[in-house]
Amino acid sequence: MQRQTVSVQKRVLQDNELAAQANRQLFARCGVVAVNLIASPGAGKTTLLVETLKRLRSRLRLAVIEGDIATDQDADRVAATHVPVRQIETGGSCHLSARQVAEVLGELPLADCDLLLIENVGNLVCPASFDLGERIKLALLSMPEGDDKPSKYPGIFSKAAAVVVTKADLAEMVDFDLDRVRRDVTKLNRNCQIIVTSARTGQGLDQWCDWLIDMVNQAQAARD
Amino acid sequence: MQRQTVSVQKRVLQDNELAAQANRQLFARCGVVAVNLIASPGAGKTTLLVETLKRLRSRLRLAVIEGDIATDQDADRVAATHVPVRQIETGGSCHLSARQVAEVLGELPLADCDLLLIENVGNLVCPASFDLGERIKLALLSMPEGDDKPSKYPGIFSKAAAVVVTKADLAEMVDFDLDRVRRDVTKLNRNCQIIVTSARTGQGLDQWCDWLIDMVNQAQAARD
Repeated sequence: MQRQTVSVQKRVLQDNELAAQANRQLFARCGVVAVNLIASPGAGKTTLLVETLKRLRSRLRLAVIEGDIATDQDADRVAATHVPVRQIETGGSCHLSARQVAEVLGELPLADCDLLLIENVGNLVCPASFDLGERIKLALLSMPEGDDKPSKYPGIFSKAAAVVVTKADLAEMVDFDLDRVRRDVTKLNRNCQIIVTSARTGQGLDQWCDWLIDMVNQAQAARD
Repeated sequence: MQRQTVSVQKRVLQDNELAAQANRQLFARCGVVAVNLIASPGAGKTTLLVETLKRLRSRLRLAVIEGDIATDQDADRVAATHVPVRQIETGGSCHLSARQVAEVLGELPLADCDLLLIENVGNLVCPASFDLGERIKLALLSMPEGDDKPSKYPGIFSKAAAVVVTKADLAEMVDFDLDRVRRDVTKLNRNCQIIVTSARTGQGLDQWCDWLIDMVNQAQAARD
């Protein structure tokens, strides 16, 4: 059983990789940078996303995909910013798949888009293994979750181009050791950028948005 | 592919169910109540566990299994309470399996134990689908995660015998609507107990420990 399970897992990942490659080619043809946001439930993905859209919608052409196991509450929050959004309800599955993403891409104005933000299902484990065709994986880590998470969940922290630390306004309440996070993330992933933010106070949001614009500009420059 | 994947997932779950049944029979023979603690990363499982062990070790005979993807940091924290503990490092897997639990049961003094607390991998999704042979599933929900989690992650909240709300000392900082949680959990799961706690202030910990003792007494009474 064990051997067969492993072999089927491998085929599921291979099947996902084919769909991811197709998404990647579509993103390249449209000149859109796709970003896959991965974090625990309640790390503040949707709140960061909404604040990001408000700041960037006059500077970049944006679109959003919301992934959730159930409900379209998050898509409603995003839709209020007037940025095009599509919701994927996975119906129990613990991560987005490249095929699920492919199914909604046709409903978004990709050809007129610079940046596609994909909010994955709230899960610090499984989404790290499923490529969606994105250019960039991002990990969010909220301060109340604790500074031990990079060492305990190395998968996503070793693959992320940046770690956005969220809810920094709670720093003093939760004894979060940012130096430990920097140390542990750097051990896994030397080039990872760490950006400390609070959607409540606005801390770090300009730096974070500038970083995203920089990623879009770099991709644009590589194409030209 | 899709059909084959579903069929293998079904077989993985069936395989797990066989191991879970064997665990359940062993727990019954030993007269031990097993509790499966399920929550997001950083919801405060280990902190609640350590506070629980300190309060209950003079009243019940205890043992602990710690599940983590990587590191044995949590087992070290538990071991400091002098309660017997075994660590399972899943090496990437997003949930404990009944077989992994079975492999460490022989190393714990089950015959002299009233209550076995199993801390699952930090993940609000996958662990809900894998029975470990436990008598009770528990969901933890930390206030900073947000009051929308029961509606967005219905799987675990519909199966839990109790929801322990943690980090209640942060209530005012994070606008957590406890009434919404009560409403949403009750919709999924009418008999679910909701216990509000803070390991920092001690709020609710006596109520929580009394609830656990009650569970052990009920199991004992059912056997007699």
